[in-house]
Amino acid sequence: MRATLMYRAGDVRVENVPDSRIKHPTDALVRITASCICGSDLHPYHSMTAADGPARMGHELIGVVEEVGPDVAMLARGDLVVSPFAVSDNVCEFCRENLQTSCSHHEADFWDGIFDEGGQAEAIRVPLADGTLVKLPVTPDSALVPSLLTLADVLGTGYHAARAAGVTPGQNVTVIGDGAVGLMAVLSAKRLGAEQIVLMGRHTDRTDLGREFGVTDVVAERGEEGIARVRELTGGQGSHAVLEAVGHMPAYEQALGVVRPGGVISRVGVPQYEEAPIGFAGLFRHNIRLAGGPAPVRAYVEELLPDILDGTIEPGRVFDATTDLEGVPAGYKDMDDRTSLKVLIKP
Amino acid sequence: MRATLMYRAGDVRVENVPDSRIKHPTDALVRITASCICGSDLHPYHSMTAADGPARMGHELIGVVEEVGPDVAMLARGDLVVSPFAVSDNVCEFCRENLQTSCSHHEADFWDGIFDEGGQAEAIRVPLADGTLVKLPVTPDSALVPSLLTLADVLGTGYHAARAAGVTPGQNVTVIGDGAVGLMAVLSAKRLGAEQIVLMGRHTDRTDLGREFGVTDVVAERGEEGIARVRELTGGQGSHAVLEAVGHMPAYEQALGVVRPGGVISRVGVPQYEEAPIGFAGLFRHNIRLAGGPAPVRAYVEELLPDILDGTIEPGRVFDATTDLEGVPAGYKDMDDRTSLKVLIKP
Repeated sequence: MRATLMYRAGDVRVENVPDSRIKHPTDALVRITASCICGSDLHPYHSMTAADGPARMGHELIGVVEEVGPDVAMLARGDLVVSPFAVSDNVCEFCRENLQTSCSHHEADFWDGIFDEGGQAEAIRVPLADGTLVKLPVTPDSALVPSLLTLADVLGTGYHAARAAGVTPGQNVTVIGDGAVGLMAVLSAKRLGAEQIVLMGRHTDRTDLGREFGVTDVVAERGEEGIARVRELTGGQGSHAVLEAVGHMPAYEQALGVVRPGGVISRVGVPQYEEAPIGFAGLFRHNIRLAGGPAPVRAYVEELLPDILDGTIEPGRVFDATTDLEGVPAGYKDMDDRTSLKVLIKP
Repeated sequence: MRATLMYRAGDVRVENVPDSRIKHPTDALVRITASCICGSDLHPYHSMTAADGPARMGHELIGVVEEVGPDVAMLARGDLVVSPFAVSDNVCEFCRENLQTSCSHHEADFWDGIFDEGGQAEAIRVPLADGTLVKLPVTPDSALVPSLLTLADVLGTGYHAARAAGVTPGQNVTVIGDGAVGLMAVLSAKRLGAEQIVLMGRHTDRTDLGREFGVTDVVAERGEEGIARVRELTGGQGSHAVLEAVGHMPAYEQALGVVRPGGVISRVGVPQYEEAPIGFAGLFRHNIRLAGGPAPVRAYVEELLPDILDGTIEPGRVFDATTDLEGVPAGYKDMDDRTSLKVLIKP
């Protein structure tokens, strides 16, 4: 079968690999019908060394169950499923607390690719299938597929940013980053009742889409100028919640600059730093809280799915390009060049 | 009148100073009947340079209102009052949200001493008296005075640690630090229903008092050994909430080591660092939250006062020594030597 492999930074190839197959009794074999490239795939695209490659890529997918292991009880051949990016048993202590990204099962984990396989491929073995996969009540050719695919990562991750921040009706929220996750954070803040949503971003096509998702103010400036502009827009006080969807230090510094006393910085951009200012001046003086982490997107599927099915939200609008598997390497390049926001893959 | 001045690290003197008097129409002049030395007073006691001295000391006090400015409406001569360590108008946007330590009034502020005066003295001018001071329904010689005095700082600060952490019934909580604030955090976690309370501390007399306040397990070990012990006591997972009442980096590192996935580190020890690990490994991987800051103790008075008046809680037990004003320098030394936990001053 065909699958995407990253050999090193900038070197993505689609090649023949051994067919995926069931290995453990809790596995499902899924024939992939829709997948995509994630903003987080660009991190290794920038920095991966040859020693770490080749790596199978992709962690967002919808597909048809082709076969299940003998211990899989809730899925059957022919089911259309979405696979959250984190493998989880969905029954352990942490999963029951809706923290599936900290699932304590020894097979549970996440990162680029689902273990030894990836979603940018024709098929995939999904571990802990009963816990991980969620059945979808549509057919693989449904027009809702792009929106449903966002349940695998970007919608749930943006929603996690807003939920971890505890966004409540009437609040003012600043979203840092106009990538797909930032735009999903906008949609999520709006869904939770935010009154003012400031989007810090510089790509007009993206911030325009942000406005359709609920953005009230766009701030293109960065650094001190951007901070001053957000403060001006928020009555001088800053935002109750800052949703940080980038992960680089300047984004954290922006967040510190625009958060209101007693407010919260909620991070879903994977931090590309370890140490950061959190002392008296940084967070402590005004009781600023810090929240967020890898999104337990599995926890949010039941809540968000109905809104997609009835058209209340259209998160699939973040996809602005579609390709087949052979076009994946070009898709990486387009996302890296910012000519594409997010690329949908139809294997 | 007599007042306490710190000239530099280790040099505390009680001297004659000009009598306190009303300066602004919202001031009250308070004759101090009970005051104390705070663990945070030991920071300048260790590090203050002569260039920063002499400074008036003390920010916790109970006293009798002797005179009020013309704009003070809610207090009258003869009222017994407690003064939270932060001056606030209690009516601004932030005060109304119970964040009095971020009060937006230009006269509001806090730190060692209330502006140019201090509580370790015979009298004090308290700014924004209507907002800051709270009337007490007892006489100055009440046996409840030591407990009521803790409303000025340590009880409210310990309670803030637990409240900012969102401690709920049944949780397991680790408190780092067996000083007065740590012990108040124990009492507070117990009050909020924590089932298991682990106290990390090495002073047996203090941890014994901690047990009376609700500690279920004492861990005297520090560093990796202390972390392993707490994890062992908490089923391998760590604590839902870690209340950090020290402020030094090793305490933060202990907190990182013992917090449970999805848990929260709530800091009320003033950070003696600015940068700290909060990246993927530190906080992000397991959605660890960070909370806390200078406690808005004014916000908690109405809630905690009844429990003191009816004897449900006895926070005043943290005072293990009493002195008059002339004994204050020796009190600093005793607290620094750890021969006293907290020194009560009867001017």
